[in-house]
Amino acid sequence: MNDLTPNDGDGYLLDQALALRGESGLFEGQTHAAWANMVGPYGGITAALMVQAVMQSQCLGEPVSLTINYAAALKDGPYRIRARAARTNRATQHWVLELTQDLDGADAVMATATVVTAARREVWRRQDLALPPVAAPETFAPVILFEAVEWVRRYEIRLIEGAVPAVYDDRERDSQTRMWLRDAQQRGLDLQAIACMSDAFYPRIWLRRARWVPTGTVSLSVYFHASGQELAETGAEYVYAQARAQDFRHGFFDQTAHLWSRQGLLLASAHQIVYYKE
Amino acid sequence: MNDLTPNDGDGYLLDQALALRGESGLFEGQTHAAWANMVGPYGGITAALMVQAVMQSQCLGEPVSLTINYAAALKDGPYRIRARAARTNRATQHWVLELTQDLDGADAVMATATVVTAARREVWRRQDLALPPVAAPETFAPVILFEAVEWVRRYEIRLIEGAVPAVYDDRERDSQTRMWLRDAQQRGLDLQAIACMSDAFYPRIWLRRARWVPTGTVSLSVYFHASGQELAETGAEYVYAQARAQDFRHGFFDQTAHLWSRQGLLLASAHQIVYYKE
Repeated sequence: MNDLTPNDGDGYLLDQALALRGESGLFEGQTHAAWANMVGPYGGITAALMVQAVMQSQCLGEPVSLTINYAAALKDGPYRIRARAARTNRATQHWVLELTQDLDGADAVMATATVVTAARREVWRRQDLALPPVAAPETFAPVILFEAVEWVRRYEIRLIEGAVPAVYDDRERDSQTRMWLRDAQQRGLDLQAIACMSDAFYPRIWLRRARWVPTGTVSLSVYFHASGQELAETGAEYVYAQARAQDFRHGFFDQTAHLWSRQGLLLASAHQIVYYKE
Repeated sequence: MNDLTPNDGDGYLLDQALALRGESGLFEGQTHAAWANMVGPYGGITAALMVQAVMQSQCLGEPVSLTINYAAALKDGPYRIRARAARTNRATQHWVLELTQDLDGADAVMATATVVTAARREVWRRQDLALPPVAAPETFAPVILFEAVEWVRRYEIRLIEGAVPAVYDDRERDSQTRMWLRDAQQRGLDLQAIACMSDAFYPRIWLRRARWVPTGTVSLSVYFHASGQELAETGAEYVYAQARAQDFRHGFFDQTAHLWSRQGLLLASAHQIVYYKE
């Protein structure tokens, strides 16, 4: 399925996947087939769940940063998230989270995370990283990144540069991908949606090296430059996103990504380190 | 003091500050006056302590990534670090850490961290981020960044660009600082030293805005591109380091930093989000 229309009454697929039961630090949820990756759920949805768990915990202010460490590929099925405020200050709060699943009768850690929330204030501001020159999203055709992967259908992706190589021919090239994207159901932006989107780049090594190798994100950090209110004002408009790698070594490479609104507001920066195997 | 000579027999000041008692997940230490910042210890030394606690715990392989969240300014005195392997895989291990101090009779969380360790393997490698063109370190004079701050004396810093404004005159400028630096005692590089160095940039807002405002790093992530062995081979040579900000908003700005060896090897990339107040 590829939902290019608003939700059918059951709520948006992102909200369905973010539905957590619980409130005081222990949440229960269920992986959602609409966000499946090749093995287990798409990493972005798990990142969004960490944000959701904190925001459902009556946190101070709202998330300004998130780091999630992917300890293992989640299994399809139920999971628990434990969220604990390790420290509450006047203007900031420090959260520690753990996502677990039953594995051979034990409660196995599948992901750990930390989130900092804060009361945002209107003070002196400057955005030094401008939206790069780019033509309007409508001038690029929508693409399905991978036919065999479900989560990519949750986004309407209009690729500008850096498509998945049509043939893995070992012809090395630049690792950058640039694209416009938005929720395929045109759900509005919020901090959960940004966390989810910040992982929407396929592994840079497949592009850079033009060879398919097994990969898995090990750690992802997101800085939420835009507030929840600024995201709400952006609505369901296209987001411009770009990512590139800087170094591939010893079985790990990095990805640096930035997201801007169509109006040029920097929404988030994200960094991840990814395992690759030969 | 400004130690431009090797250690005097008591060991290097970095090693003194990293001396932790304990081994199986609970460590005790003491803040070190040589690494004092304006309030509490320099953030880089606390980051290095998290790496130290993991490496002293008989971890799998060595750290490839670190995220530390600074929950409060440490007090001078004793502290505890709890380090727990939340998940051990064949090639990676996920650590969760917490640094606490006694505060009004309670065990208060001052910092949280996550570290991923891994067995590095020699596989296909590419470094896409080259050392920027720069003259030799010896052609720039050593500077003391701040006379009143102790930790800056732990480094021999040769500034290329982006000095602390001589006058805070609100004349806005570019946020980038470029410098050569090395341990003032010429202690050799290792992963702890890189974690420590990755925070060796003063708050970008002081430069960008040319105004002093109170700041504090909230979260710092370091990706260790170079292995412990590559760092050992680099020895005590100068490291080229640069950092800039991308966005200042709602009381938070980011800093993106990169460290290279003199020979041009990318050693680490680091990202942080910093609180600022008006």
